[in-house]
Amino acid sequence: MRLSGRMSDSNRIEGKAVADGVLAQCRRDVEDLRARGIVPGLAVVLVGDDPASAFYVGSKERTCRELGFHSVKLEMPASTTERELLDTVRRLNADPAVHGILVQSPPPPHIDEAKVVEAIDPRKDVDGFHPVNVAGLALEDARAFTPCTPAGCMKLIEAAGAETRGAEVVVLGRSMIVGKPMALLLMAKGADATVTVAHSRTRDLAAVTRRADILIAAVGRPEMVRADFVKEGAVVIDVGINRVEDASAKRGYRIVGDVAFDEVAPKCRAITPVPGGVGPMTIAMLMSNTIKACRLQHGL
Amino acid sequence: MRLSGRMSDSNRIEGKAVADGVLAQCRRDVEDLRARGIVPGLAVVLVGDDPASAFYVGSKERTCRELGFHSVKLEMPASTTERELLDTVRRLNADPAVHGILVQSPPPPHIDEAKVVEAIDPRKDVDGFHPVNVAGLALEDARAFTPCTPAGCMKLIEAAGAETRGAEVVVLGRSMIVGKPMALLLMAKGADATVTVAHSRTRDLAAVTRRADILIAAVGRPEMVRADFVKEGAVVIDVGINRVEDASAKRGYRIVGDVAFDEVAPKCRAITPVPGGVGPMTIAMLMSNTIKACRLQHGL
Repeated sequence: MRLSGRMSDSNRIEGKAVADGVLAQCRRDVEDLRARGIVPGLAVVLVGDDPASAFYVGSKERTCRELGFHSVKLEMPASTTERELLDTVRRLNADPAVHGILVQSPPPPHIDEAKVVEAIDPRKDVDGFHPVNVAGLALEDARAFTPCTPAGCMKLIEAAGAETRGAEVVVLGRSMIVGKPMALLLMAKGADATVTVAHSRTRDLAAVTRRADILIAAVGRPEMVRADFVKEGAVVIDVGINRVEDASAKRGYRIVGDVAFDEVAPKCRAITPVPGGVGPMTIAMLMSNTIKACRLQHGL
Repeated sequence: MRLSGRMSDSNRIEGKAVADGVLAQCRRDVEDLRARGIVPGLAVVLVGDDPASAFYVGSKERTCRELGFHSVKLEMPASTTERELLDTVRRLNADPAVHGILVQSPPPPHIDEAKVVEAIDPRKDVDGFHPVNVAGLALEDARAFTPCTPAGCMKLIEAAGAETRGAEVVVLGRSMIVGKPMALLLMAKGADATVTVAHSRTRDLAAVTRRADILIAAVGRPEMVRADFVKEGAVVIDVGINRVEDASAKRGYRIVGDVAFDEVAPKCRAITPVPGGVGPMTIAMLMSNTIKACRLQHGL
């Protein structure tokens, strides 16, 4: 098994530990860049006052500061016009101290999100959602930025010691944020997996997912993946973050994944928990993408 | 069975007949547009004197004329510089009588093909290879242009009366020209297939392809798909066009697909021959894309 990041004794893939490994590498990269007089910069733009968005933006800013990035946090009111937001993006595009730009999703409903994403300079699109980067992923262009969640899943698969080459991988879910980029990453040269994308219209879903040596659950349905969905010895990556009511929990709800962890885990060679699996990876990969952007923009 | 295009009595999917159906629709569309004073225009640029490329360009020009398109054929010498070709593309981008632009692939080796494709206005990229259109396909944007060969395969599947929704589809081959766009089209909402992309690194390839209700062979290896690769009753679409030596043939070679037709056909519900299957569809879909481009550019 090749392990990057510390693993516990059980078959749980500890996302926090793997993410810490990625962030430790980022820290070394920041030192290297500083020695050349370069400081990686990330700008995060938050429009409106959605509490979940504010929480994510706060975490990103904190991680930037911990790593020694130049961190720009722009908070704009919910009444911000599309024009104002586009102008802000263009200013950040032109700012040489900013290597990565992220506009926290979703913006208020009067703003066309696709337009905002397309306004970001693709070389600064560290979220990987600009059409140039989406195409770059399909075209296997190494300069393209990979969306952070699927990139994080790839690291978790590696950390679990699972070989993708020739493996049967089933991606459950076909969203543009996770399912499709995940499938494209896994079928690319080098990864070389045999990838099946399954979804709500798939007939006999459990039979399809049971083929998987590696199963990625990214469907957004709480604990949908049961024991009979999983082959003995499979590696399971659970991307789901679902809120379910729970009167016994302090907040009245708890967070569960797309996988029924307790019944699936005993069958798995390795499995990510929720929380503490894919979640911590997303921010780590954002930082890693920002360093990549910084390097490319400085011709390194 | 829903049939578009005439089918023969056998289980052969007659690509020529289906293509003729698409072209007949194009002809009606041309008449509609003419009634509004609009003539669809396609520009095809050929650089150098590769005989196969010259042949394809000739066919495209002929089909344009048959349909009553405004047809521009530009033949440039092999010594054309990248700069000159890019200038030509920019002139065509600016020409309101030209709705579609195609630079015949491959250009001479001193020209960066990706740069040329990216120079084409995405709204005129009727080949569907511009990053904006590649991304549009992944993002299921109806305005995006779909590459002609996979779009043609979708029509052939429809002509065979095969339902994609919930079907197990295996795409053999992961190229950006066919395999990947084919997979993205088939997994999109509306098509709703369960899609597996298999390739040279797939373990036990025959077992994987045998799952397919619909099998797309796009691997470029002559007659690689044998009887044991195919499930009884499957629909098989053969994208391969391979030249194999044949002393008994007049030219010393014959054209075969990726499928060993004679042994596979008896197992199939429907199968495309080579030649006469996917081939005729590619030009038909190019014409169809040009009409779509013309309409979008005129706000129709």
